[in-house]
Amino acid sequence: MSEVYAVRRGLLRDRYAAAGSAAALVSRPANVRYLAGGAPPGAVLLLGPGEDVLLCPRAPTGDPAHGQPDERLRLDVLPDGDPVVAAAGLALGLDADRLAVEEHDLTVSRHRAMAAVAPRLRLADLGSAVEQLRLVKDEEEIACLRIAAEITDQALGELLESILVGRTERHLALELERRLVDHGADGPAFATSVGTGPNSGQGRHRPTDRRVEEGDFLSVCLGANYRGYRCEIGRTFVIGTAPADWQIELYDLVFAAQRAGREALVPGAAYREVDHAARHLLDAAGHTDGLPAAIGHGVGLEIDEDPQLAPAAMGKLDACVPVTVEPGVHLPGRGGVRIDDTLVVRPEADGGPELLTITTKELLAL
Amino acid sequence: MSEVYAVRRGLLRDRYAAAGSAAALVSRPANVRYLAGGAPPGAVLLLGPGEDVLLCPRAPTGDPAHGQPDERLRLDVLPDGDPVVAAAGLALGLDADRLAVEEHDLTVSRHRAMAAVAPRLRLADLGSAVEQLRLVKDEEEIACLRIAAEITDQALGELLESILVGRTERHLALELERRLVDHGADGPAFATSVGTGPNSGQGRHRPTDRRVEEGDFLSVCLGANYRGYRCEIGRTFVIGTAPADWQIELYDLVFAAQRAGREALVPGAAYREVDHAARHLLDAAGHTDGLPAAIGHGVGLEIDEDPQLAPAAMGKLDACVPVTVEPGVHLPGRGGVRIDDTLVVRPEADGGPELLTITTKELLAL
Repeated sequence: MSEVYAVRRGLLRDRYAAAGSAAALVSRPANVRYLAGGAPPGAVLLLGPGEDVLLCPRAPTGDPAHGQPDERLRLDVLPDGDPVVAAAGLALGLDADRLAVEEHDLTVSRHRAMAAVAPRLRLADLGSAVEQLRLVKDEEEIACLRIAAEITDQALGELLESILVGRTERHLALELERRLVDHGADGPAFATSVGTGPNSGQGRHRPTDRRVEEGDFLSVCLGANYRGYRCEIGRTFVIGTAPADWQIELYDLVFAAQRAGREALVPGAAYREVDHAARHLLDAAGHTDGLPAAIGHGVGLEIDEDPQLAPAAMGKLDACVPVTVEPGVHLPGRGGVRIDDTLVVRPEADGGPELLTITTKELLAL
Repeated sequence: MSEVYAVRRGLLRDRYAAAGSAAALVSRPANVRYLAGGAPPGAVLLLGPGEDVLLCPRAPTGDPAHGQPDERLRLDVLPDGDPVVAAAGLALGLDADRLAVEEHDLTVSRHRAMAAVAPRLRLADLGSAVEQLRLVKDEEEIACLRIAAEITDQALGELLESILVGRTERHLALELERRLVDHGADGPAFATSVGTGPNSGQGRHRPTDRRVEEGDFLSVCLGANYRGYRCEIGRTFVIGTAPADWQIELYDLVFAAQRAGREALVPGAAYREVDHAARHLLDAAGHTDGLPAAIGHGVGLEIDEDPQLAPAAMGKLDACVPVTVEPGVHLPGRGGVRIDDTLVVRPEADGGPELLTITTKELLAL
């Protein structure tokens, strides 16, 4: 397994070397994990011309949520001081006169502290080089996402078998998170969202004490974190025996938009085309306000990573990129519908997009 | 209530004006909340020579976990782009040639983007001016912490009445978090830690699937978030009818250290003296390895804020500063003890330190 991390570090080395840097310091936590296999919180990774060093504020604990560092890395445990400052000192010793750093992650203060400790070191910007490597997932990463999605489907499926009327959004959210862990998640991938009645259909609604009532829409959005990999599912149900006409109409519309988005997931499709495929159906039905800024986004070691499937996004989908497709419409005061899947982009020859979250998207009356 | 926020902003204005800035941009989330009363995630606060503006990526939702913005603030909702960049543009319009920013919060990339959009603006460092204002709490803030502590004591008390043997650390942690919310918390103040047997007594142990067994030490650490204010309690219990001699001995030692730390909480005491009061007892008993880096820390809008009660910390305690006192000893392979309270520093004339977390510290055999 550690072969994988060495290969990733090699790819990154090629990039920063081509840009004129002799060494790179990776500080963004998901990027550190991607290249090191695992790391305690706060660890940073120095890729040098020689040895690669993981600088940790404390020793790794074997906690599966943080993973295990690749054994090929030198491990420096530094209980005192900022590891990025220590890394700047080390880089000088490595005879690297130009060090690429993640300017989108480092604060101005940490950057200054590095410059102060190693004034001869020229600090360049690594940019989002690691994020770009992370875009396309290997089969091992996709296997983790697949397990995360299975756990998520199980947790949601069990909830649907229980009595919902009278329970609060908060309790349902906590129960879903407990079930994720029961089924083997290292934790929730993000804060579980449950919205009922007027709160339904919103993207990142934080659960309140509102209780589920007959006739409500009920929207849930949850996901498991499995070995660092995070997926997402969102479903909307109706509570009671029969949905109202407006509910059926709205559901069908969002369902059609979500299907159109899923069907647009083809290698080579522009990110904005996927967004447009779903969004124009909602627009055409008059729902222009309050639409999500993006119809979907990448998932992996972070729950919201590149690519963004948004109107102004630049770029095209590759095969083996996992993304969400999650259009929604929320009518203020009435509620709404949101349907969210995690899929992996696959060539048509391989059967098209691989749906990871397989819970039914029929409008269930619970 | 909004009076309070205007007063806080006035105090900050005095500080940055004295340092030569005409305006300040506050971006660290807890600092924004402290000065604005409440803000949606990602909001930043521009304090100008004239109007104060809260720049939000989306409209406030009334979610109690984020609070409500002070009505005296101008509210700019900017769904696209980075609010700090928009703030730089606004600051130019405000005729402020020098803008103080939080360099310990802003990334290098955001800082550069601000400079690019407003090249005539000189960016200075606000430093930790807001953190310094936040050190001493007013009675309303302490009231929130008191409620947070009550909720935390209730959640822990209920757990102690249930059967523990055979349950996993993860399940106990999830149950504690559910009970926090049941009793009115906006959420847990931090990830609840439960450690059994060899995992007991560690600071931020992440719960595993290990089950509670007879004869184990069981350590829990939890806290409620109430209106943004976060407290912390940590207790260690023994499972079964009678603790072993080594368990009693270790417990008595940590208890004595924790009491010494609590008793050192006097206005005017140096931070390092409080640390020393507890630490030297553990040192003297031969437990020099693996002690926590700090015996305690401030709590408030963040669970770990200034002051740090640590060997090298500079500064002295003031009255009305809430802190934790949380020494612990962990014996690798055997487990350990950690005892953690949240207290408010008070003058002796007022009865000395106010203990917020009142769950018993006797060694309970459960």
